[in-house]
Amino acid sequence: MTSPTLISDGALHTVRIGDLSTEAGAVISGAEIAYQAWGEFRGDASGANNILLVEHALTGDSNAAEWWCEVIGPGKALNTDTWCVVCTNALGSCYGSTGPASPHPDGGRWGSRFPAISIRDQVTAEKRFVDALGIGRVHAILGGSMGGARTLEWTIMYPEMVDYACVLAVSARSSAWQIGIQTAQLSAITRDPDWHGGDYYDAPHGPDAGLAAARRIAHLTYRGELEIDERFGTSAQAGENPLGPYRRDDQRFAVQSYLDHQGVKLVERFDAGSYVTLTETLNRHDVGRGRGGLNKALASSKIPTMIVGVDTDILYPYHQQEHLSRNLGNLMAMSKLSSPVGHDAFLVEGRQMDLILRRFIALMEQTPSPHDFASHRGAYDI
Amino acid sequence: MTSPTLISDGALHTVRIGDLSTEAGAVISGAEIAYQAWGEFRGDASGANNILLVEHALTGDSNAAEWWCEVIGPGKALNTDTWCVVCTNALGSCYGSTGPASPHPDGGRWGSRFPAISIRDQVTAEKRFVDALGIGRVHAILGGSMGGARTLEWTIMYPEMVDYACVLAVSARSSAWQIGIQTAQLSAITRDPDWHGGDYYDAPHGPDAGLAAARRIAHLTYRGELEIDERFGTSAQAGENPLGPYRRDDQRFAVQSYLDHQGVKLVERFDAGSYVTLTETLNRHDVGRGRGGLNKALASSKIPTMIVGVDTDILYPYHQQEHLSRNLGNLMAMSKLSSPVGHDAFLVEGRQMDLILRRFIALMEQTPSPHDFASHRGAYDI
Repeated sequence: MTSPTLISDGALHTVRIGDLSTEAGAVISGAEIAYQAWGEFRGDASGANNILLVEHALTGDSNAAEWWCEVIGPGKALNTDTWCVVCTNALGSCYGSTGPASPHPDGGRWGSRFPAISIRDQVTAEKRFVDALGIGRVHAILGGSMGGARTLEWTIMYPEMVDYACVLAVSARSSAWQIGIQTAQLSAITRDPDWHGGDYYDAPHGPDAGLAAARRIAHLTYRGELEIDERFGTSAQAGENPLGPYRRDDQRFAVQSYLDHQGVKLVERFDAGSYVTLTETLNRHDVGRGRGGLNKALASSKIPTMIVGVDTDILYPYHQQEHLSRNLGNLMAMSKLSSPVGHDAFLVEGRQMDLILRRFIALMEQTPSPHDFASHRGAYDI
Repeated sequence: MTSPTLISDGALHTVRIGDLSTEAGAVISGAEIAYQAWGEFRGDASGANNILLVEHALTGDSNAAEWWCEVIGPGKALNTDTWCVVCTNALGSCYGSTGPASPHPDGGRWGSRFPAISIRDQVTAEKRFVDALGIGRVHAILGGSMGGARTLEWTIMYPEMVDYACVLAVSARSSAWQIGIQTAQLSAITRDPDWHGGDYYDAPHGPDAGLAAARRIAHLTYRGELEIDERFGTSAQAGENPLGPYRRDDQRFAVQSYLDHQGVKLVERFDAGSYVTLTETLNRHDVGRGRGGLNKALASSKIPTMIVGVDTDILYPYHQQEHLSRNLGNLMAMSKLSSPVGHDAFLVEGRQMDLILRRFIALMEQTPSPHDFASHRGAYDI
């Protein structure tokens, strides 16, 4: 029985993971991973324990207790009276982990020196983080969208370290459509004169207009078209007339104002360099790469995995989760979020997510883990 | 029995339609409409006759015999041995009809002086064109996408002039999602430093990069995600490596190269000002405006109308054509194109369109028109 050096007080902590060689052959020197954790650790750090590792989406952060507040906390589906919930900030992001906006060891910011990273690089970094805390195994990994991609890679890259997994609203690899729409977003940023090839950190301001434009496009893939239409239809923004004799950027439909607001909100809280880096990370998502193809890679998975999809998801259509379910080596369950909201449903449909994650917790109780989880259960007294 | 001054030799002709007041209160002075026609006119120009008026989509032109070559021609579904097929270039476009790139009566190009126009303004212009040719009635109007929107407005604005209609791959009004994704395209162009507020015609070049970016986004809404994925998946463009240690714009996935090509092709053949104008025209599409709402407007339609949708259409999802079918006052038939191709299926699925349009022709034979078409049939010997 070993104990981890994990601080589960809900505050942001940072762990050094050393120099990281990327899948494509670059090096990120002196990398750090930020994390937050909630709930007392129980069990064996290198064996069976109560850690639930939660993975955030593209512009998320380690504050899972906030962005998934309806399912994480005392008495909730991911009950922090029982479980120790850990969430890191992904490599390449801008909420404490090393990314383009971080100081470079040689001075200045990383900027254009920050390499392209894959989902696998993010998982490698998180594995190093887990190692650094003295943790050899986690009870489950859960995540949606980019967090789902990391969860899936975890089960294939380090199956000896994961008992169960829950993969939400993602695919086994990027589709060409996803690469296309994501590249449109990259283009919106890199075409901004304030982008400066990614080295804008000493300039008066960054590529704010480009980042906002990217977010407006992205948001239309995160929400369902029926939901957006029900909310806004063809209504004019209050006090504006989008039907005047000449088109004017300041005379908008309500949906334009809504999307503008989404863009501005992201500019206020997110780094454009991280957005470019992580969008490219999603472009490179492919569990089949170097593993004999997609379905062979999925079939090789031994970790009992629950797949969750959203029926109205434009970005990761439900047939992609059906594909995962059909091909994963150890499918534990498949669940569909029925919602007009689209991709974001796994973040906003709290009641359904509560039911789905309670089912996930119950299924783990009933399903043997490849690591003989059952024989260790007494050790941490769930 | 009157004869029109219609030249159906397939060549491009231009008709002056005078000064046009737009729905929003601007004036387009000295407007012209370009057209092409195929097949001998038969019947009464002001009564029953054999004119099929075909309406093109956003970046289309009057050369319907080319872009719909699988269904227009001798012996084809729209048989030019029987029918006189007429296609105009829409107001605001750049293929002969008046648009932003046209010479302004006061000198220079229209540019930013060209007003915002609605679908109704385009129909008003086309009605003036028909008037100018001495035509009082057409046998049928057919069109998809922006052409479908014009067809629908024709049946509501000038029902006394239309016997039948076939409306493909469009909705009763823009959805908020459509306005959002179309506004993203407008933004890509108007953020281009070479846009110059729409007055770039005397500059060395126009907003080519912005127009290409807009087209790349648009194309992802014109094609089905399964079709694009089947063609490109995560493949690299030949000779390029999109998985290198650093993201580079010249190292692309195959789908990026494909979309770049779509962008470049459009820049070579289309005016950015027209693209902005016509995209805004689509944003303003709403048959309910000023008519007591959407469903009341649709219910008021007396013209026997066939609705066609595509099961994988991202831009105009099939439920929008179902909505039209449920609410139109005189639905003649509903037909579904089953295709992985998405929105563009009405242009590229020749075999299915052949069957659908033959069915449309047959249904017209069987269905009384509100104008007593049957009693005139002998007049032009179909």
